[in-house]
Amino acid sequence: MSSPDFDDDFRARLHELFVWRRDVRRFRRDALSEGALERLIGTACLSPSVGLSQPWRFVIVDDAVRRQAVLDNFTRCNADALNDYSGELAQRYATLKLAGLREAPCHLAVYADHGTEVGHGLGRRTMPEMADYSVVAAISTLWLAARAEGIGMGWVSILDPADVATALDVPADWRLIGYFCIGYPQTEADSPELERVGWEQRRPVADHIVSR
Amino acid sequence: MSSPDFDDDFRARLHELFVWRRDVRRFRRDALSEGALERLIGTACLSPSVGLSQPWRFVIVDDAVRRQAVLDNFTRCNADALNDYSGELAQRYATLKLAGLREAPCHLAVYADHGTEVGHGLGRRTMPEMADYSVVAAISTLWLAARAEGIGMGWVSILDPADVATALDVPADWRLIGYFCIGYPQTEADSPELERVGWEQRRPVADHIVSR
Repeated sequence: MSSPDFDDDFRARLHELFVWRRDVRRFRRDALSEGALERLIGTACLSPSVGLSQPWRFVIVDDAVRRQAVLDNFTRCNADALNDYSGELAQRYATLKLAGLREAPCHLAVYADHGTEVGHGLGRRTMPEMADYSVVAAISTLWLAARAEGIGMGWVSILDPADVATALDVPADWRLIGYFCIGYPQTEADSPELERVGWEQRRPVADHIVSR
Repeated sequence: MSSPDFDDDFRARLHELFVWRRDVRRFRRDALSEGALERLIGTACLSPSVGLSQPWRFVIVDDAVRRQAVLDNFTRCNADALNDYSGELAQRYATLKLAGLREAPCHLAVYADHGTEVGHGLGRRTMPEMADYSVVAAISTLWLAARAEGIGMGWVSILDPADVATALDVPADWRLIGYFCIGYPQTEADSPELERVGWEQRRPVADHIVSR
């Protein structure tokens, strides 16, 4: 296959994709089409990984009891989180919708396999966390590929990873990277929901760059 | 702005972008055009971040003495890594080119600011590592945007992060996520270099999926 020549039109559309990718918490209940999730996972596996270790492990969670355990876990952790805030921030936190676990048709837990010998450890000696980062790169790929099909993803991190591991019965040397709600979003937006509701605002790019 | 409607043609090109994104270690010496790196960093900042915390800190490394310190760091860590292998793997490791630090026109260190209060801690209580993952998501965005312009990136993880922090004089509560070589690649490829040279091979997608 000869190397593709990406043009200005593609780059403009790609930029729109970055602008319109959201962390989605409000889902319609429609199921994805048969095989869509597996296909998106296949695309995610095109991502680069440290030493070609491919440490990503995708756990498709369909069982209602397991899903309920994750929802209970979230509810508990979210209540604990609310207790950490006070005053106006607490009031505002209490109004936020931070996950779509009840409505989203797909639940996906993504793990990094810390026990894999694939890749022969290359690139992980001084920075073993690279395995986790490779999994995040795959998640980022999945997220963009999904959005390009009109499918939304929401990353749920308000969870106790040990309890998720128990609920999903995964190997002890797998580390939870993220738990995801996936489905069609109720609305599209080109700005983060946390900005629209006044929780936080985006800062100028220049604030994030230093020169050395 | 109304929501974009991505079509089959865009999705096919996006898939090609995922297929042709490589971890690049062989760079031409040509400089990027003026402002290109800053523009790509601006695109990276469109990424989602936990609690809208935007913890990414981009350190553009131009100083020759600092660059040399990072190269020395890599050379030392890579020699240590070689010592961990024996037999045929050691011979093969010794032939690998794992970084383009000498040739790449741009050096970019990317950090997660663990001290930031932006986002008010939302989403980081039970999984504080989410800040690091947000930075990886931004790196993934930068990587794709760069490749769409014909610019290659290589992720260097064979480094002692403490020594990088000293060389770059960054705040103590910044955590190194990755050090990147950026520039025009000598060649394009649709398969990983580590696969082409026989270090490791890509596994079937189905090996990475489990159902629960």
